Amino acid sequence: MAQLTIVKVGGGIVEDEKSLHALLDKFARIEGLKVLVHGGGRSATRIAEQLGVQQTMIGGRRITDAETLKVVTMVYAGLVNKNIVAQLQKRHVNALGLTGADMNVIVSHKRPIKKVKMEDGSTQDVDYGFVGDIDQVNAELLAELIAKGVVPVLSPIGHDTHGSLLNTNADTIAAETAIALAKVQEVSPLTMHLSPKFEVRLMFCFEKKGVLRNPDDDDSVIPSITSEDFPKLVADGIVSGGMLPKLENSFQAIESGVQEVIITHADYIDNPEAGTRLSR
Amino acid sequence: MAQLTIVKVGGGIVEDEKSLHALLDKFARIEGLKVLVHGGGRSATRIAEQLGVQQTMIGGRRITDAETLKVVTMVYAGLVNKNIVAQLQKRHVNALGLTGADMNVIVSHKRPIKKVKMEDGSTQDVDYGFVGDIDQVNAELLAELIAKGVVPVLSPIGHDTHGSLLNTNADTIAAETAIALAKVQEVSPLTMHLSPKFEVRLMFCFEKKGVLRNPDDDDSVIPSITSEDFPKLVADGIVSGGMLPKLENSFQAIESGVQEVIITHADYIDNPEAGTRLSR
Repeated sequence: MAQLTIVKVGGGIVEDEKSLHALLDKFARIEGLKVLVHGGGRSATRIAEQLGVQQTMIGGRRITDAETLKVVTMVYAGLVNKNIVAQLQKRHVNALGLTGADMNVIVSHKRPIKKVKMEDGSTQDVDYGFVGDIDQVNAELLAELIAKGVVPVLSPIGHDTHGSLLNTNADTIAAETAIALAKVQEVSPLTMHLSPKFEVRLMFCFEKKGVLRNPDDDDSVIPSITSEDFPKLVADGIVSGGMLPKLENSFQAIESGVQEVIITHADYIDNPEAGTRLSR
Repeated sequence: MAQLTIVKVGGGIVEDEKSLHALLDKFARIEGLKVLVHGGGRSATRIAEQLGVQQTMIGGRRITDAETLKVVTMVYAGLVNKNIVAQLQKRHVNALGLTGADMNVIVSHKRPIKKVKMEDGSTQDVDYGFVGDIDQVNAELLAELIAKGVVPVLSPIGHDTHGSLLNTNADTIAAETAIALAKVQEVSPLTMHLSPKFEVRLMFCFEKKGVLRNPDDDDSVIPSITSEDFPKLVADGIVSGGMLPKLENSFQAIESGVQEVIITHADYIDNPEAGTRLSR
């Protein structure tokens, strides 16, 4: 069973040339098979403004209308993704940039209209536009390429199989891809039984060094959390706010076959000792 | 030996939604294995203008400076390429959008500074900027994917393996990819000898129905030209102007192992009888 590391980095890191190059140096040094998932970021908003595409925000969230979808496709799947691929090739990593439409890897559906609570306390039906919720990750072909040493670089764009691309959350793409790859099986040459092809490790890059015991102390990283520890940390208020859904999703990935999830700073992705390790 | 058709379409067709959808309907109907190569087109110029990126023209040709390279990467590799992929998936074609950087498929070098004759008769050293001349097409992984039914969709962007993407001519990408795929070999299960994996047919879409005997008569398509006929057609002035380098490149592809080259109108790519067929 081959070790496979899936690294998710946010849009902020990949948009700044210096931080991107530092990240890719470290990513190239990760041993074994690997996948990179990158977020979008602010440059799409800037380019949309320059192109005169109005950005609609409802309840603090951007609506992806048809024109905004064109911009995020250009920026995330074009500019950001292909620059990462070229920079990884420079580092002798055989990268392959993908959206969910490529090889039908990530099948999504347009997010249905949702009732959302507004700032003034009222409730409103919100159509987020061309935003995707993931139905399925088709990992078989991806797994074959990964096993041949190809390193997929996934941009946060899915598709609906009916011709529309969809703006999709990169954390979710990373988690769902990790789960799907953990489920891929192969016939063991020794026993002739089916067994998992990869031991999947999912790494979320974060602006902190990991999950902190004390939010005011950057060095109070909790080195390891098991699914048994987790409810206690939540009850004690140590895991709260934005970290809570991140960890819930991580433990769900672990329940679904992912070996471990690591929450770490982008500066430490090549350090196997750094960050917080989540496991069964 | 499997039949493989490589279709090259220009930027004009793929930028207009209606003509693109009509083309993809026909492309989806082509039998056997296939590859699509698409050009750039004018929308990159329009978007560059909107973004305030100055377009420098020297001797009638656009210079790809660093900012223009960002725009063509966004438009060709992002917007145009990924929309084609999503539209092909809708048509049950398992498309995979690629630049030359992806899986290191097309290795190029930055075009050296060239002496170019200007309109006033003077000669000037011209640096075309981030424009690529192709060194090598790495077709092995591509061939494996094609054999599994994946349909690569190549955008006119190469890379130099040193981290830079390069604006690259789509006709050249189509011809060099056809040659490289025609050279891929496999072991025949019957004879255990190496033989070509694909019988490669290269199809250039064109605004005319084919090579015309009389340029004023759109129906005077020459159905077939062999490498023996070609010098005579040139001597008689029937092949001239922009058609001359297109046919020279086509016969070079045929000399290098491509089975035949077809020059046809985009409306007829699914009609095996249409257009002009070039062969040995």
